[in-house]
Amino acid sequence: PPKPQIKTEYGKRGMTLEEDLNQSNEVYLAKGMAVIHKKPTPVQIVSVDYPKRSAAVIKEAYFKTASTTDYNGVYKGRYIDFEAKETKNKNSFPLKNFHSHQICHMESVQKQGGIAFVILRFSEDNETYLLDASYLFPYFSTSYDGRKSIPREEIALLGTLLPLSYSPRIHYLEAVDELYFP
Amino acid sequence: PPKPQIKTEYGKRGMTLEEDLNQSNEVYLAKGMAVIHKKPTPVQIVSVDYPKRSAAVIKEAYFKTASTTDYNGVYKGRYIDFEAKETKNKNSFPLKNFHSHQICHMESVQKQGGIAFVILRFSEDNETYLLDASYLFPYFSTSYDGRKSIPREEIALLGTLLPLSYSPRIHYLEAVDELYFP
Ligand SMILES: [Mg+2]
Ligand SMILES: [Mg+2]
Repeated sequence: PPKPQIKTEYGKRGMTLEEDLNQSNEVYLAKGMAVIHKKPTPVQIVSVDYPKRSAAVIKEAYFKTASTTDYNGVYKGRYIDFEAKETKNKNSFPLKNFHSHQICHMESVQKQGGIAFVILRFSEDNETYLLDASYLFPYFSTSYDGRKSIPREEIALLGTLLPLSYSPRIHYLEAVDELYFP
Repeated sequence: PPKPQIKTEYGKRGMTLEEDLNQSNEVYLAKGMAVIHKKPTPVQIVSVDYPKRSAAVIKEAYFKTASTTDYNGVYKGRYIDFEAKETKNKNSFPLKNFHSHQICHMESVQKQGGIAFVILRFSEDNETYLLDASYLFPYFSTSYDGRKSIPREEIALLGTLLPLSYSPRIHYLEAVDELYFP
């Protein structure tokens, strides 16, 4: 378990997993280490105003379900693709926030020779893990009808703990090197 | 130059380059040939309504400038990244629609070992070319102060003509194979 001080420090800053990852990706980009971006939130635009002498204003739009994961890019020539999620649960990670088409997408990516994983955070004690996407696939198979959550011990066993630091805040490429560039 | 019949046929259908590419990417995905998606349009959301018993409505939002290109994904394990543009010009392709950060992004992608190109269409006679992104870089260097358009003969010489067909409508992976998987 992480030291209480670290927990407090990061808790105070109130950084979400997304903010940590965006900062890390900016550092990677600036240092020429990788080119990885978060995709924009998909939105269905219904009506737009074009006022004179100012920017177009979207007046009506709706959130669409994403058909892919949130992050992708290139690292050492390879395609990298991942989804990041947090939970307040302590003992297991609920998978209901993963859409089946996201899982499907990560399967297609791996079949095409790309690297696909998830970054999972237990936000109560700020522990973050990288887990290869393939561990999620069985939970979404049509024949599976058990619980849609992964026990924390399983994530700790199968995944890689990602230490938090100052910059990049989550140096997840270290784990990527270990797992996919041995 | 393309046969007048083909021009008329596709002109009638009124397919934009984006529609052609989206259809092609769907075919590639369905056949397990590649996983390439168009990124959502980036939008800055300012205000959202949460009506009871119905979906959230975005009431005010603005278009943001994209920091990357529109399309990316994975093909044979490699990272693929491209931007697609059309022009009604007949003799040259104006580069003013490319933002400097998109050019910068494609440079970073190539440095990281990814594949970056542009797909350019002369919509008046429906000719579409794939051109490696590196040919655009000189036009955006700080020392360059010439015209920001590429002569069509240069595109025809340096690029690869992409024939239109029924499905996939633009089989650009053929050109990718030729150029990047020799
Ligand atoms: Mg998401
Ligand atoms: Mg664009």
